[in-house]
Amino acid sequence: MANKKITSRSEDFAQWYTDVVNAAHLSSYSNVKGCIILEPNGYAIWEMMQKRLDKMFKETGHKNVAMPMLIPENLMRKEGELINGFAPEVAWVTMGGDKKLEERMCIRPTSETLFSDYYASVVNSYRDLPLKYNQWCSVMRWEKETRPFLRSREFWWQEGHTIHETADEAEKETKDMLGVYEKFFKDYLAIPVLTGQKTESEKFAGAEYTLTVEALMYNGVCLQSGTSHYFGQKFSKAYDIKFADRNNGTSYVYQTSWGVSSRMIGALIMVHSDEDGLVLPPRIAPVQVRVIPIGKEEESKEIYDLADKLYNDLDSKNISVEIDRTEKSPGFKFAEAEVLGIPVRIEVGKRDLENGLITLVRRDTKEKIQVSKDCDIASEVNKLLDTIQKDMYDRALTRRDEMTYEVKSLEEFEKQMNTQPGFIRADWCGSTDCEARIKEIRGCKPRCIMPNDKLLTGKCLVCGNEAKHLVTWGIQY
Amino acid sequence: MANKKITSRSEDFAQWYTDVVNAAHLSSYSNVKGCIILEPNGYAIWEMMQKRLDKMFKETGHKNVAMPMLIPENLMRKEGELINGFAPEVAWVTMGGDKKLEERMCIRPTSETLFSDYYASVVNSYRDLPLKYNQWCSVMRWEKETRPFLRSREFWWQEGHTIHETADEAEKETKDMLGVYEKFFKDYLAIPVLTGQKTESEKFAGAEYTLTVEALMYNGVCLQSGTSHYFGQKFSKAYDIKFADRNNGTSYVYQTSWGVSSRMIGALIMVHSDEDGLVLPPRIAPVQVRVIPIGKEEESKEIYDLADKLYNDLDSKNISVEIDRTEKSPGFKFAEAEVLGIPVRIEVGKRDLENGLITLVRRDTKEKIQVSKDCDIASEVNKLLDTIQKDMYDRALTRRDEMTYEVKSLEEFEKQMNTQPGFIRADWCGSTDCEARIKEIRGCKPRCIMPNDKLLTGKCLVCGNEAKHLVTWGIQY
Repeated sequence: MANKKITSRSEDFAQWYTDVVNAAHLSSYSNVKGCIILEPNGYAIWEMMQKRLDKMFKETGHKNVAMPMLIPENLMRKEGELINGFAPEVAWVTMGGDKKLEERMCIRPTSETLFSDYYASVVNSYRDLPLKYNQWCSVMRWEKETRPFLRSREFWWQEGHTIHETADEAEKETKDMLGVYEKFFKDYLAIPVLTGQKTESEKFAGAEYTLTVEALMYNGVCLQSGTSHYFGQKFSKAYDIKFADRNNGTSYVYQTSWGVSSRMIGALIMVHSDEDGLVLPPRIAPVQVRVIPIGKEEESKEIYDLADKLYNDLDSKNISVEIDRTEKSPGFKFAEAEVLGIPVRIEVGKRDLENGLITLVRRDTKEKIQVSKDCDIASEVNKLLDTIQKDMYDRALTRRDEMTYEVKSLEEFEKQMNTQPGFIRADWCGSTDCEARIKEIRGCKPRCIMPNDKLLTGKCLVCGNEAKHLVTWGIQY
Repeated sequence: MANKKITSRSEDFAQWYTDVVNAAHLSSYSNVKGCIILEPNGYAIWEMMQKRLDKMFKETGHKNVAMPMLIPENLMRKEGELINGFAPEVAWVTMGGDKKLEERMCIRPTSETLFSDYYASVVNSYRDLPLKYNQWCSVMRWEKETRPFLRSREFWWQEGHTIHETADEAEKETKDMLGVYEKFFKDYLAIPVLTGQKTESEKFAGAEYTLTVEALMYNGVCLQSGTSHYFGQKFSKAYDIKFADRNNGTSYVYQTSWGVSSRMIGALIMVHSDEDGLVLPPRIAPVQVRVIPIGKEEESKEIYDLADKLYNDLDSKNISVEIDRTEKSPGFKFAEAEVLGIPVRIEVGKRDLENGLITLVRRDTKEKIQVSKDCDIASEVNKLLDTIQKDMYDRALTRRDEMTYEVKSLEEFEKQMNTQPGFIRADWCGSTDCEARIKEIRGCKPRCIMPNDKLLTGKCLVCGNEAKHLVTWGIQY
């Protein structure tokens, strides 16, 4: 694996991003237009994300299922807003073998329709509720542009779909799952997020409202990183999901859905990585430590024995560790561990060893830490991994805060966006016209409404009328 | 969850199978023709299978990736035999949004083409080899008939695809992965399997040869349960997967693929289950123990306290355990634990407790075992789970052996198949004509060639010419 050159982040952020993806072998373009391949290093990160999130979903009472990947057109059309939202970007299957299908089917762009149809067939009584299901799968949206992890026709995600007896319960679920996402971003990805409600024009097709998790990238561009939707009874009425209620009557269920996707890998890169490659937070890194013995194996028995011992000590304490026994030069080995984003490398070399030492190197800061070769290595490494995790979050939070700007006029807004984009806080009257005016500024959109924050001026930044909300705005991927 | 009536296995095996699938809520038909839904109980078994197998794959040096789900027609057509084998049964995407595609694409029926295309782009030198990748996904084959888990248009599987420097290495991989499957069936599913090579007419389209894992169901029908293919250089020549070899020349890689699918859930049912529902081997059961306190909670504090203690003791020892606190009758609770196939239920009742006892009930034999309420429950349960696992395998092996028949003439063959089908061992000359003649008997096909077994008569059972192989034959799902 050659350590390809990585473009300077400040010179060309987009190229830097692509270079990191390639150099760390996370993903590659396929010969299937608009579709990417998750290579082993990229897929391993996705597996870690799945593992952590799946545990959180199960702990909150959710169960996994698998729905078909195809949706017959009629089933898709039952709820009008959804099909209107997705029709322009679905892939249609029209032939099975050499026969034209009687009814064409689309590859799922999202599965509200299938879950609703299924729920309608299994729910009879309020005693059957709630049903809280999730599936891990890939979905297909016929996008024109492709950018690895951020936008591609096929992407990998989870979609939770739940039905409830009451609106209160469903709204609580919508909010709870947003909380799960927020916690996951903070505790595992070391990414601080804004959470809140989308405006009417930005909500999911068919939802009563959409809650969102918004992250800020290193360059000040925003990434919508997860959403949780409250549907009320829109789908349950369209798909006839009824149940015998507690009052001997018949009611429609209240419904939610929520999802995060492989796009989170893009967020990891654009929040934490640098010009030497990937930087992974320890709690999501597939490999946390790489031990690198320095010198030729046949001439360095003591070094290799110690490297093996360190490996075994770490492995036995459930630290994810590798050992690099290749014959490449030390410099090459160090660079490779760096480009892959491995949080800690341990260098075992002759000079150190003469002083009874080994060297731990942090990926995030490049700081070198010498410790005794006889130390309790698992405990040293665990401490260091915790420190790295915390420091990475703190740095991302500081940067996010530094790149959050309050503006009080359209001129200030425009100036800020043209010098340094970021999270822009500004008052808004709630009209779509004013929203559209702001969109003219580099495609800037409302990220989310900040219901608990005090208005800045009390006047809409565009029209000057009374403001209804403080909103955080930004350019988006 | 009502305990639906299950048809007698001896009266109507097919209906019994469907009834077990429904009663245990493993899967349901969807409104997408030919596609099934994996419901939570079915998906949980699939998750256990994935977890166990994934560990075995990783321990043998394989890495997971994700390939696109679509294959452009041209890419699909590069290797002639594969497309000929699969063309009649692929789903074609012809529209993206409202635009007709310039080139139609099929939903993957299998991914040799995509892996080959990818490998061609990343392999340069013998130093890059081997590459041993796997993916977990669903695939689509436009089948006419649907039977849950056994045959449906969409099914869930893993497909390993590897490339190697030499034929020897690739052939070793083909065999090794068959060994992994055999071990998985034996150690986890408690199912004895026959392994061996398929005949020319039964091998995978495009393979040099196919190795197979064959299981025998309770009714004597066979289930091809996993395959491992050796491709030689067929795909590498068609897709141009070349590398700079050790002799300063250019060579084509040698290739394999191997897969098992959600059809294994069908095998689990048809080998082990009975007329009270599912019976799961402990090492694949998502829930191994269900604790059932008997009596109303408010009147039975001692019982519920003990049930909680048992639950906690088992849970803390990594035994997968549930507690049933519902207000249903004891009989209903017992039947429910049975229909779900939970290997052990623990009944905590008043009368037992007066004698200081609790009762463990084995799902497989219904045997009741009384133990002291103060015993080391985790150790008792672990012993019992091991016994159940072993007994289930032994019973399946005994039945398999009892249903394996040696026949020396076509008349005997036909008679056996018409009285009691099973694994039929008979000599064969190797001609496809004789194979076709045998197929006239209830669609009977060669399961696999038994290269190490001595011929029975030395003469082909059909034509009487010199026999080349002893073959095991059978009717198949």
